Amino acid sequence: MDFPHPEYAIIPGQRKNDHCGVVGFAGKSNVSLYLYYSLRALQHRGQESAGIAVFNNKIVVTRGMGLVNEVFSVDSLKKLNSNIGIGHVRYSTAGSSTINNAQPFLIHGSMGDMAIGHNGEISNAQDLKEFLEAQGISFNTESDSEVIIRLLSYNISRIGNIIEGIKKTMSMLIGSYSLVLMINNRLFAIRDPYAIRPLIFGEADGIYGVASESVAFDALNGKIIRDLNPGEILEITENGPISYGNTTEKHTAHCMFEYVYFARADSIIDGKSVYEVRKELGKTLARESPVDADIVVPVPDSGRTHALGYAEESGIPFVEGLMKNRYVDRTFIIPDQMGRIQEIQLKLNPVKEVINNKRIVLVDDSIVRGNTMKKIVNLLKASGAREVHVRIGSPPIVAPCYLGIDMKTRSEFIASGKSIEEIRKIINADSLAYISIDGLIKAIGFPKEDLCLGCLTGIYPVKIKGEKFRDQHSLDSF
Amino acid sequence: MDFPHPEYAIIPGQRKNDHCGVVGFAGKSNVSLYLYYSLRALQHRGQESAGIAVFNNKIVVTRGMGLVNEVFSVDSLKKLNSNIGIGHVRYSTAGSSTINNAQPFLIHGSMGDMAIGHNGEISNAQDLKEFLEAQGISFNTESDSEVIIRLLSYNISRIGNIIEGIKKTMSMLIGSYSLVLMINNRLFAIRDPYAIRPLIFGEADGIYGVASESVAFDALNGKIIRDLNPGEILEITENGPISYGNTTEKHTAHCMFEYVYFARADSIIDGKSVYEVRKELGKTLARESPVDADIVVPVPDSGRTHALGYAEESGIPFVEGLMKNRYVDRTFIIPDQMGRIQEIQLKLNPVKEVINNKRIVLVDDSIVRGNTMKKIVNLLKASGAREVHVRIGSPPIVAPCYLGIDMKTRSEFIASGKSIEEIRKIINADSLAYISIDGLIKAIGFPKEDLCLGCLTGIYPVKIKGEKFRDQHSLDSF
Amino acid sequence: MDFPHPEYAIIPGQRKNDHCGVVGFAGKSNVSLYLYYSLRALQHRGQESAGIAVFNNKIVVTRGMGLVNEVFSVDSLKKLNSNIGIGHVRYSTAGSSTINNAQPFLIHGSMGDMAIGHNGEISNAQDLKEFLEAQGISFNTESDSEVIIRLLSYNISRIGNIIEGIKKTMSMLIGSYSLVLMINNRLFAIRDPYAIRPLIFGEADGIYGVASESVAFDALNGKIIRDLNPGEILEITENGPISYGNTTEKHTAHCMFEYVYFARADSIIDGKSVYEVRKELGKTLARESPVDADIVVPVPDSGRTHALGYAEESGIPFVEGLMKNRYVDRTFIIPDQMGRIQEIQLKLNPVKEVINNKRIVLVDDSIVRGNTMKKIVNLLKASGAREVHVRIGSPPIVAPCYLGIDMKTRSEFIASGKSIEEIRKIINADSLAYISIDGLIKAIGFPKEDLCLGCLTGIYPVKIKGEKFRDQHSLDSF
Amino acid sequence: MDFPHPEYAIIPGQRKNDHCGVVGFAGKSNVSLYLYYSLRALQHRGQESAGIAVFNNKIVVTRGMGLVNEVFSVDSLKKLNSNIGIGHVRYSTAGSSTINNAQPFLIHGSMGDMAIGHNGEISNAQDLKEFLEAQGISFNTESDSEVIIRLLSYNISRIGNIIEGIKKTMSMLIGSYSLVLMINNRLFAIRDPYAIRPLIFGEADGIYGVASESVAFDALNGKIIRDLNPGEILEITENGPISYGNTTEKHTAHCMFEYVYFARADSIIDGKSVYEVRKELGKTLARESPVDADIVVPVPDSGRTHALGYAEESGIPFVEGLMKNRYVDRTFIIPDQMGRIQEIQLKLNPVKEVINNKRIVLVDDSIVRGNTMKKIVNLLKASGAREVHVRIGSPPIVAPCYLGIDMKTRSEFIASGKSIEEIRKIINADSLAYISIDGLIKAIGFPKEDLCLGCLTGIYPVKIKGEKFRDQHSLDSF
Repeated sequence: MDFPHPEYAIIPGQRKNDHCGVVGFAGKSNVSLYLYYSLRALQHRGQESAGIAVFNNKIVVTRGMGLVNEVFSVDSLKKLNSNIGIGHVRYSTAGSSTINNAQPFLIHGSMGDMAIGHNGEISNAQDLKEFLEAQGISFNTESDSEVIIRLLSYNISRIGNIIEGIKKTMSMLIGSYSLVLMINNRLFAIRDPYAIRPLIFGEADGIYGVASESVAFDALNGKIIRDLNPGEILEITENGPISYGNTTEKHTAHCMFEYVYFARADSIIDGKSVYEVRKELGKTLARESPVDADIVVPVPDSGRTHALGYAEESGIPFVEGLMKNRYVDRTFIIPDQMGRIQEIQLKLNPVKEVINNKRIVLVDDSIVRGNTMKKIVNLLKASGAREVHVRIGSPPIVAPCYLGIDMKTRSEFIASGKSIEEIRKIINADSLAYISIDGLIKAIGFPKEDLCLGCLTGIYPVKIKGEKFRDQHSLDSF
Repeated sequence: MDFPHPEYAIIPGQRKNDHCGVVGFAGKSNVSLYLYYSLRALQHRGQESAGIAVFNNKIVVTRGMGLVNEVFSVDSLKKLNSNIGIGHVRYSTAGSSTINNAQPFLIHGSMGDMAIGHNGEISNAQDLKEFLEAQGISFNTESDSEVIIRLLSYNISRIGNIIEGIKKTMSMLIGSYSLVLMINNRLFAIRDPYAIRPLIFGEADGIYGVASESVAFDALNGKIIRDLNPGEILEITENGPISYGNTTEKHTAHCMFEYVYFARADSIIDGKSVYEVRKELGKTLARESPVDADIVVPVPDSGRTHALGYAEESGIPFVEGLMKNRYVDRTFIIPDQMGRIQEIQLKLNPVKEVINNKRIVLVDDSIVRGNTMKKIVNLLKASGAREVHVRIGSPPIVAPCYLGIDMKTRSEFIASGKSIEEIRKIINADSLAYISIDGLIKAIGFPKEDLCLGCLTGIYPVKIKGEKFRDQHSLDSF
Repeated sequence: MDFPHPEYAIIPGQRKNDHCGVVGFAGKSNVSLYLYYSLRALQHRGQESAGIAVFNNKIVVTRGMGLVNEVFSVDSLKKLNSNIGIGHVRYSTAGSSTINNAQPFLIHGSMGDMAIGHNGEISNAQDLKEFLEAQGISFNTESDSEVIIRLLSYNISRIGNIIEGIKKTMSMLIGSYSLVLMINNRLFAIRDPYAIRPLIFGEADGIYGVASESVAFDALNGKIIRDLNPGEILEITENGPISYGNTTEKHTAHCMFEYVYFARADSIIDGKSVYEVRKELGKTLARESPVDADIVVPVPDSGRTHALGYAEESGIPFVEGLMKNRYVDRTFIIPDQMGRIQEIQLKLNPVKEVINNKRIVLVDDSIVRGNTMKKIVNLLKASGAREVHVRIGSPPIVAPCYLGIDMKTRSEFIASGKSIEEIRKIINADSLAYISIDGLIKAIGFPKEDLCLGCLTGIYPVKIKGEKFRDQHSLDSF
Repeated sequence: MDFPHPEYAIIPGQRKNDHCGVVGFAGKSNVSLYLYYSLRALQHRGQESAGIAVFNNKIVVTRGMGLVNEVFSVDSLKKLNSNIGIGHVRYSTAGSSTINNAQPFLIHGSMGDMAIGHNGEISNAQDLKEFLEAQGISFNTESDSEVIIRLLSYNISRIGNIIEGIKKTMSMLIGSYSLVLMINNRLFAIRDPYAIRPLIFGEADGIYGVASESVAFDALNGKIIRDLNPGEILEITENGPISYGNTTEKHTAHCMFEYVYFARADSIIDGKSVYEVRKELGKTLARESPVDADIVVPVPDSGRTHALGYAEESGIPFVEGLMKNRYVDRTFIIPDQMGRIQEIQLKLNPVKEVINNKRIVLVDDSIVRGNTMKKIVNLLKASGAREVHVRIGSPPIVAPCYLGIDMKTRSEFIASGKSIEEIRKIINADSLAYISIDGLIKAIGFPKEDLCLGCLTGIYPVKIKGEKFRDQHSLDSF
């Protein structure tokens, strides 16, 4: 599955900062290129906008629409000379694609300048916004990230202490948040108490930093030191980290979807190699749902690692039977007149010679709405495939995500209220199998209680209005 | 004198919204083109940025850098279909030329959406900002216009009543402000208690509106109804105006510089024709400071009306002895290598045939730093003028403006601490005369007490730290 | 009358390079800023595109759409370091507004690199194009300027000598042409045998150059040396000019419209001051067509000098009764919905106080289609004028221009086939008078035989298919 | 190996149109979307510029810098309504990246309008240019494609017959050329006598067309009909093709590099599946150069198919041990300051968990300069690889390509004058093997005599100054 992915259900007009990537660095020399290169390594987490905030007497933010290398030129980077800074890449959800929503956000208050970059989603953002408005505070956007920064400003101003203000704010926020925060020339990294989104601390050339994924440090030829703890507040200085403690919830709620699809395969999150998780998912799938077939074909690029695992475990040859056009990833247009040409044919082209008359195991990481999978199955059959057996490296998605993945509307999930057989008919496959929830859990390697499986089970780790939740949210443990 | 004018003293880094133009319209049909055309008629009040806010379920702001017709295309105007809206053009002061400072400003608070366009300058903006920050409120810019809108939001939220919130805000603001304010789908126009900047109410095609100057209604083929009263809050509805009263200060403090230079000659402000004021200034100058000369030459275009008055009163022929290059108004560059070429020669070219061997009365509206005038005098002499007698249609500017004209630094005024004879020598004129303050007052036609003459006298109508003030600021009269 | 002027008749699809400005400089140091500043001084001759060609081992052309200062940045000028170069500004005629038509044009042929900038119009361009095509030569545009440069390349290649190739080319061209031509690192200026368009040689800081008008040298603080002779080929080197002779036609055919409207008032063309010509036109008009009135009002800015002459001669006071909005010159849009608002009101605003109840002499330089004049008369009357007497500083335009002014269609001229009284009724004036042809000729000061009066008389100095011509075209005199 | 590929030797300043893609369609309905989508399918052949020419009374060209979907918007495509047209995508070589070099080229001559799109390279372009210049013909660019179109225009004009003019032109051209040519509303496709570059005829929805590769018809849901014959002139009409014959050279000279690297894996060229050729190259390599290892790792994406073949033949597991950052393909900047960070790390990241302590067979399609391969080997070793055995799916490149691949300078090829062992040491591999020339020939499946192996052998199918050639060029066979 590839983002931007047309299969995802989107609530029109919603303005959340779901998928994003964050970085922050502090050192004894200029960090601007460390921010830049680490953001490029996280580009897969957001392609809509990019931004960097640095401190030079005051905090200065540069942000723009587009990829990191489109927003920042060599010249603009030269102007960002600073020993401390944060960066952000943002994913575009419907209706929110404007420069006003690009991060980092910057405000000025009694504490001076404050800038924030946020990855995650705040479930009680509307309640918190109304609370602040009643105090006479006004907002510029409808972003939940602005709620975080205005609330931080409010609490720090009222309490008169930065760390206590942050803790107070964390006690009020419900949801997922990996934050990079600058208050004047100080840099903080904050991870929510359930550690839902990734955030990792590392070092390169003696410069310390945090990033959403470990690949940011690979790109810098640096090394990772450790993941942030659940609920941890970590200040990053040129001399190293200062931890202001963390919460001690009984269980975390790591998002399983980071492993299945969203993170880069070469990342290591909370100690688990994403590549190995995906390969193990493929192997498990081969054991759980074997099939008599001639070749294993991945949906490129999202299903490749799972497919390699399936091929290895099953002994069926792995074949790149679908070629991807590298140049049609972005902004694709299909005028009405051309209805006969299907978008999928411009993105994926079957290699007829190798699929002709073959029984195919087609492997992908997940199915959300099912439209694309149906088109791919039909494309393979039209190109001569004898049978197409679909194998999916995650269980059926049946419930919305409220914690940072852009899957919002229950009614649009193909698996919502349908049997596997019903889905199979819709996508026109000869057979269909998903990995089991237990198989998924074992492949990732965390106890079931430490994962967020909300989109698979409808049971959430935090309170969501109208949804079941697993346990009580608290920050008493500070 | 022409804006953008290099002679003005500018405080580096200062971010005030000094010279600006505002409009607002409410009607039974779409007002977007009324906003657009009236803004174009006010383009002389600000060429840096332009913006329009309209209401369609929520307030939507479109703004950009550049002239009104550069910011808005036919297509973008079509999208602004609404029965109510406000507009703003902004002048660029040093260091503030970014899209973040473009107006209207838009915020969301407990009252819903609120957008503002501001012409003027708040003298106690820093005090008010610190007050709000202490309440936990944070800011996005350093603009005094943002202080107004966040203060309005604070007071309206706390008091729970829009009109009372506005009145409370006015009682806290010190300075000049002509405001257009939208709160959801309601439109308000507000003028400060001293009526320092212009603001006029009118109508076109049954649509009611306000604008900084009467020419906005001329452009719409409409008619002016009346100027806003000092301290008046006027709501504008599709059925006409509703006044929520005004203050009753003993005296107003109309800015004399609007008449002398800033407003368009074809505007009528507070009942006075700017053209006739300027012509009378020229006549008065001719009576006060006659000279034996062959021709009267204006500095185009700023001194033309004054020069016509001088010529008419003196009987000396009026000659267009300086030709202006219409295309070098904006963004002019002079690389170092080209030091020999003077900017002034690219803007103004003497018509040698008509000035050769002539005794010239050179008329302009004002002198601020004096650099340009010196260059013009030398240019005329190098082109064969026998004598150059400079006559200025306003008294010497000796003190900063804190109320909305971009003249900030006492030390940069050529007239500051110098005698007329000393100035004459600097600008290399054969004689030099300014109009007297009494002459100016009579030509404008208001009692001395109803004008702001701060830049001429150093005595201000409102309290400014470190400056003399004329009387006590109060809003008791509400 | 102001360009871009909506009154001009335009042949749809026609692609001529009518109104343009050209410059060329050669010196011992970098000439790029001399090209830049002189082009800015000629900006009134063309606002659509601008371009500069310089020689650095090869000829490099930089050109773009827009004003000179929009096309060239400080950085781009720095890259144009060269001791020799030419420049061009181009006026937009219908259908030709693309970068492909921007000049200088550059080609490579047997003589090396060749670049050209052209002001004028070739009457036999189509015949010459067909001749060249028959030789196997192909074209990139439909511009008559490309015909000139391909013909030059053809003749120079065939003859094997640059000067002889140029002379051969001139003997084949019929029409108006002021050319700047670079062949590798040599610079030539060429004027057609009738000297229809202006071209003047001068110097600044020891650098020699040519330009369409003398104001280019004023802007450079330089001086003019002499106009090019009719049919002259002038090479410009860093050591000064080399003339390769000129033709000796019995008569020139200077375009009268350069004096009346097109050139800048501060230019001197073929020894005549444009300002003084225009003032004399106004005086002549006052003598020929006096009227009992209260004030003389110019159509700004085109009629101002003529109006000053009229006022001086008649003794009627000169009043600026129409204010021009400086910011609506370019790209003005009038959506249908706003039919009630007339474009003219956004460009010109009457100063009601000074025209109310007055008998007005309204002076402009020319009338082409008459639409604008009718609107202005009605605007003045709606603003209270008692009488409006229109006086025009040129005779009625009744025939097309084929030699470089964008007036092409006989049927669109208001004066075509109508009596003065009929025109008066159409434009709703109380009286109407044009200057006589004899009055025009005397005011300009050349013998009738040395002027092109084609648009006034229908008799042309060169052969035009279907039109009368005055004498035989020849280049025997070389 | 991936294009744009930093390993390629580039002659500075050279302006050839090497790698490109061409398409042309003629039908009974609008072909603009067929042009657009087929160009997108050929985007891998050129990412610098894109252009489309259609006929609407005259030929109109739209072209721009960037990817096809950046150059053409839905709106711009709507304007291209025509039943006939051609398209081109262009690859950027050093110094030639300007809009002037974007194709199609358009000229006007005695035959009317003519537009061309060219893929290939003309070896005798300079000779032909000088011949034409001697006839008085001038050029606008230094592109060899312009030489083709001006020569076509010359020959067609002189001969007075289109087909004879084309044949005459082909008899003069030496080199590779797959052309799409429009002469007014007629469309021709032309392939050089050696069929060096691909060109294939097909159909979609009853519309006929040609394209550089068969994938263009896959994208349109159409079907391929046949490859153009060597030296064939094929007119394409709405009713189908008309062949004007072809040459009958004894042997073709298909470029082996199209199969090895340049074409898309899912294309079929001259009857051979590129995917199957690449897989067979990998298998052959496994047989010719086996190695005792743990995993086969491809250089993504260029070496993947070869690696799958190697893995299948050798039985060693295929592992995706290098992850590619999809977002750093284009315009990558490495400021000096950041010397410690290597570009390769931002493009490729090893998956440490799967390569740690492993003996790796690293497979790529080719090595040109060797810099990238050396970096990848070192990256793998730094990430824990025990051994790295490099296997290359093409023989050593030792000589320049003059026929359309951007490899120009002998001295920059790593294999030039070095033994395999010397190269192995430079790239720091534990072993190194290339496929043999015989192995390559067998894997492709054509007789040796029908392939161009110039870059491998230094012997070329056409005469190149200073190089060996295989036989005599002739067009007698027409």
